[in-house]
Amino acid sequence: MTTSVIPTTVNPDLQKERDGASLSSEEFAAWWAGGEETLKFNRGVRSYLQKDVDVLEMLQLQNKSHEEIIEFSVKGAIEAAKKLRRLQEERNPGGVDYWPKLYDHQVMWGLVPGGNPFGVMYVMLVKALQAQCTPEQYEDFGKRLERFEICGTYAQTELGHGTYLRGLETRADFDPKTDEFVLNTPKISSYKWWPGGLGHSSNYCLVMAQLYIDNKSKGPHMFFIQVRDEETHEPLPGVHIGDIGKKMGFIGVNNGFLGLKDVRIPRTRMLMRHAKVNADGSYVSSPTNVLTYFAMVRTRCVIAYNNAMMLAVASTIATRYSAVRRQSPINPKEREPQIMDHVTQQMKLFPEIATSLAHRLASDYLWNLYDVTIKDIENGKYERLPELHSLSCALKVTCSMDSAVGVERLRLACGGHGYLISSNMSNIYVNATAACTYEGENTVLLLQIGRFLMKTWRSALSGAPLAPTVRYLAEVQKNPDFGKWSGSWENMVKAMQYAAANKTRLAFKSLSNRLSRGETEENAANHTGIELTQAAELHGRAFVFASFTAEVTGPKSKTRSASLNRVLENLLELYLVKETLNQMSHILRFIELTDTDLTRLQERLESVLTKLRPDAVAIVDGFDFSDLQLNSTLGSYDGNAYERIFDAALKNPMNQKSVPKSFNELLKPFMKSNI
Amino acid sequence: MTTSVIPTTVNPDLQKERDGASLSSEEFAAWWAGGEETLKFNRGVRSYLQKDVDVLEMLQLQNKSHEEIIEFSVKGAIEAAKKLRRLQEERNPGGVDYWPKLYDHQVMWGLVPGGNPFGVMYVMLVKALQAQCTPEQYEDFGKRLERFEICGTYAQTELGHGTYLRGLETRADFDPKTDEFVLNTPKISSYKWWPGGLGHSSNYCLVMAQLYIDNKSKGPHMFFIQVRDEETHEPLPGVHIGDIGKKMGFIGVNNGFLGLKDVRIPRTRMLMRHAKVNADGSYVSSPTNVLTYFAMVRTRCVIAYNNAMMLAVASTIATRYSAVRRQSPINPKEREPQIMDHVTQQMKLFPEIATSLAHRLASDYLWNLYDVTIKDIENGKYERLPELHSLSCALKVTCSMDSAVGVERLRLACGGHGYLISSNMSNIYVNATAACTYEGENTVLLLQIGRFLMKTWRSALSGAPLAPTVRYLAEVQKNPDFGKWSGSWENMVKAMQYAAANKTRLAFKSLSNRLSRGETEENAANHTGIELTQAAELHGRAFVFASFTAEVTGPKSKTRSASLNRVLENLLELYLVKETLNQMSHILRFIELTDTDLTRLQERLESVLTKLRPDAVAIVDGFDFSDLQLNSTLGSYDGNAYERIFDAALKNPMNQKSVPKSFNELLKPFMKSNI
Repeated sequence: MTTSVIPTTVNPDLQKERDGASLSSEEFAAWWAGGEETLKFNRGVRSYLQKDVDVLEMLQLQNKSHEEIIEFSVKGAIEAAKKLRRLQEERNPGGVDYWPKLYDHQVMWGLVPGGNPFGVMYVMLVKALQAQCTPEQYEDFGKRLERFEICGTYAQTELGHGTYLRGLETRADFDPKTDEFVLNTPKISSYKWWPGGLGHSSNYCLVMAQLYIDNKSKGPHMFFIQVRDEETHEPLPGVHIGDIGKKMGFIGVNNGFLGLKDVRIPRTRMLMRHAKVNADGSYVSSPTNVLTYFAMVRTRCVIAYNNAMMLAVASTIATRYSAVRRQSPINPKEREPQIMDHVTQQMKLFPEIATSLAHRLASDYLWNLYDVTIKDIENGKYERLPELHSLSCALKVTCSMDSAVGVERLRLACGGHGYLISSNMSNIYVNATAACTYEGENTVLLLQIGRFLMKTWRSALSGAPLAPTVRYLAEVQKNPDFGKWSGSWENMVKAMQYAAANKTRLAFKSLSNRLSRGETEENAANHTGIELTQAAELHGRAFVFASFTAEVTGPKSKTRSASLNRVLENLLELYLVKETLNQMSHILRFIELTDTDLTRLQERLESVLTKLRPDAVAIVDGFDFSDLQLNSTLGSYDGNAYERIFDAALKNPMNQKSVPKSFNELLKPFMKSNI
Repeated sequence: MTTSVIPTTVNPDLQKERDGASLSSEEFAAWWAGGEETLKFNRGVRSYLQKDVDVLEMLQLQNKSHEEIIEFSVKGAIEAAKKLRRLQEERNPGGVDYWPKLYDHQVMWGLVPGGNPFGVMYVMLVKALQAQCTPEQYEDFGKRLERFEICGTYAQTELGHGTYLRGLETRADFDPKTDEFVLNTPKISSYKWWPGGLGHSSNYCLVMAQLYIDNKSKGPHMFFIQVRDEETHEPLPGVHIGDIGKKMGFIGVNNGFLGLKDVRIPRTRMLMRHAKVNADGSYVSSPTNVLTYFAMVRTRCVIAYNNAMMLAVASTIATRYSAVRRQSPINPKEREPQIMDHVTQQMKLFPEIATSLAHRLASDYLWNLYDVTIKDIENGKYERLPELHSLSCALKVTCSMDSAVGVERLRLACGGHGYLISSNMSNIYVNATAACTYEGENTVLLLQIGRFLMKTWRSALSGAPLAPTVRYLAEVQKNPDFGKWSGSWENMVKAMQYAAANKTRLAFKSLSNRLSRGETEENAANHTGIELTQAAELHGRAFVFASFTAEVTGPKSKTRSASLNRVLENLLELYLVKETLNQMSHILRFIELTDTDLTRLQERLESVLTKLRPDAVAIVDGFDFSDLQLNSTLGSYDGNAYERIFDAALKNPMNQKSVPKSFNELLKPFMKSNI
């Protein structure tokens, strides 16, 4: 049987959905992409990159061995790089707007489904070098990386240390006799661990190590070291390097480990834009740590955005599948319905669609704040930096946490077939959930936000002015009475802020009580940890409430058609109602809702699900993901889910011979041994 | 580097925990196992089975290809079968108490970490044959399976149908001329899909198909068919069979598909213990469907128990790791603490330990009810069957749902290293979450329970007597005033029941309103779906509350030492408080709690975490899992986590050569192409 098992027509159930929708998917797509021009541009690049890539073959990736997957991913990543370079040469020679700029853009999704082994190189390493190198250093090795003449990654986390940077054990001792640094990872726990591409594709590496001069620690600094020979790719002397083995996700990225034993590098390979070590061993410390700090902020903005998009991908797959799958009659006399007609199924799908939008719009706000703050910094103004830092943490946490849970809920909504690797739901999940841990583990970040809220609460008590996104804390302090619940959108935004502010108040009270009982500040903070994280979580949610409501009801609504606005309003209504119900235990603690109010919320929930039902497919079509980006047997545009599942099964290597060798070697002898 | 990287000593941080505990792990283990004798027996069998199995090699499983994993798993499963048979011969020749009885027991865990390809054969197929075959049929082929002379599986689910059995498309037409059935899967969506072991290890299969006589449907019946030649293992004519490809979990089980085209089997291969087709084509329907029904109930009891145990496994790994990992100072002047000293980390670990116990004890109650009901059925009494059915659904849902979420929470609590396959946390997760879908998808079951609650609520209104586990509904009807919240354990049990009963009342009201507005019963049920599932979920939780409290505070406490009782009381306290807080939005809707009550609950939560801290390691030691059963670099008894992670990484196949072939073939040419 060949691929002809997949019809070339669209599943009629899916076509019916498209024909019956109240909105234009194209209008939605243009809005979602940020304008028609952008949509057209993205689609153009995407189709160029995806040309001659076999969508059906890509589904076989996870049937391969760890080693094969890694090799396959290196190949795919290089092919994509070649295409982007070609595009750059054709359309804007000498520029950087295609290569390497788009190498981490959403247009790449699906081309390297196991992850891009050179992702860290362009997303983090080159950016870190630009920020931390002297011009000479950047000319020396930064430019070589940009041109991909050498290949590198960024190594910070160790086997024994992730979160706590100051605990890193790798050391770089300055040797003034040779004008060199001597790098060592003294213990197994000091081995660098995790960097993408470190295992087998990098020949250089930026290493975070404790700088020692005269055996005195100067704290963590960055060192650019060579780890493999450029010609042979053999590890250099003193370098112990390899692959850390399989992970839940990022299976193609060859995450690696690195042990260093007396590895010597010239003094000029410490990044010296800010801190410096002179030839005589004198040390000049960095005048500011703002820029290091800022790189982390940027990565968190990227995460918030990407995780919102992952949730949109999973929503697309599950929604289309729920339109073509028919199961369990509602009325025994009628044909089994599309599973999307079951209200409990709607309750699994539509809230996640709404959450994708809410998070995406919140992350748009965050990016705007980021751009504003960058300009401020260029002008020497640092006022909004703590706010930006805290907000980027809050959205990183909210988006990663909710998208991971949401993707998994959507996978479960696909029933048994969601458990098939070829559904791609598990791969989206492992990508989404990874973001809960990397770039600041979520609980650690929530505790940081909690501390920021404590500080802000104290400032507000003293009457100091607050930054816009925390101003609601002062308002609640000033006016502690919530007033009557009306259930309007504005009222729900206010309620979530009110709950966040009151949780902050309670945490502040607990903390103060502990301090007044004589606990140290550190112990008191640890013991108040649960309340601090809860307040921080609500703070993030309150922000998403406000930004989603502002986008849908604000002036931009005038630029959209009535039909699109109606759909966005339904999604906003669903998001606010379901999330208010989710957080009801916190809300009820501080705000009085009558039984009628609560019944009304349940009715609104059920009512808006019904309203969204006819438009669900058209909305996810409007997310505008291509089949390769979805990489799913369940979610393809044509809706031929069963045929694609079947096709993927037939192609798996296990089915290329009719009898496995284990039969004659093991099973048959065992079965015969009985008689 | 060899395996010598792993010390032979216990990590001192872990040893310190064991030395400082207030309870005896051995006493806990004996209690947990159900007595000292059982503990001793299990340990004996386990060590016999695990002898000569390489724990460290087992960690490499997931680095292999899909094909290699499947072959490896067939091998492991046969080795284990041989050992159990040997044990049977040595200890009780002719019996069945070792083989095949223990082939699915917990003592097997870890021996086939990718799943047992012959699991379905013994857990489901043989049991189905025992229940559905005539004695002659069982003699003919059932016994052959028991002796493992042939190898089979059970095929029910199709590509297009899972939940809704009556929608199955596979058909078996009776041909009176040849006294045969002719089996067909007419469409791609009719292909049998999912059965474990069907892909490449079975030569027989029990197939659920629609029986047709004279083209008239008689509904689903079971047919035993041969799919492969016993000597060559080649698929028989008309049989299209193969592997469905990789799944999130059960990677070693060779789940398969099966298409049938005019496959003929003798009439005597329809299982005819109950329904019958005679040679003349006359049909005798089954006098009862109780036994079919009952098989499903039993499987759900198994799931409730197994998922509780999976949560215990994950708790063991995460707790031990949290004792040996040190990170992020609480007090800057002190050494970085064991991460278990962070209160937020305790909040991730200890509630899951408590939940393992709560679920395990609830499933013990369920098994008792099952045994009682079996005896009742033998005596022709069916009164408690609906209650048992509903309770088995409720616990299947609660245990699978909470364990999946709990395992994942524990994995996240292990930070980055929890993302390593070698932590085994992801494999436990995919096993736990699978149970949310199979054997009755959770939402479908919740809706069934919801309907049962509606029926029960109506009975109670009419004054009819209720079964013990739903009697609280009548009590709440009779006495709708909760009274004052006291926060005692009994009061919390009552509160959860009260919330469940009131949620049932609200759903009943919504349903009645819809019916009185003229909706059909089916539409009304669909539209009330969200409320029905919520009521059903709370019903399950209320049961767990009651059974856990009864076990800890009841008469059995007299058989335990004071120190063990104290620990169990702490775990009960934690479980009740955290779950009450989790469900607070439902509780606050019906019960008045003052701000002081709520503050008190938060204090109790924090206080009991502190109390459990010194005993956490000793408790999980008391779960008594061996290193092979844990199969985790993070959770081994010796606590040498970093060394084991390192060892597993070094052994992965990617590290067996220093330069991958992709370097010379792809990466180097690409890097050189720039210059």
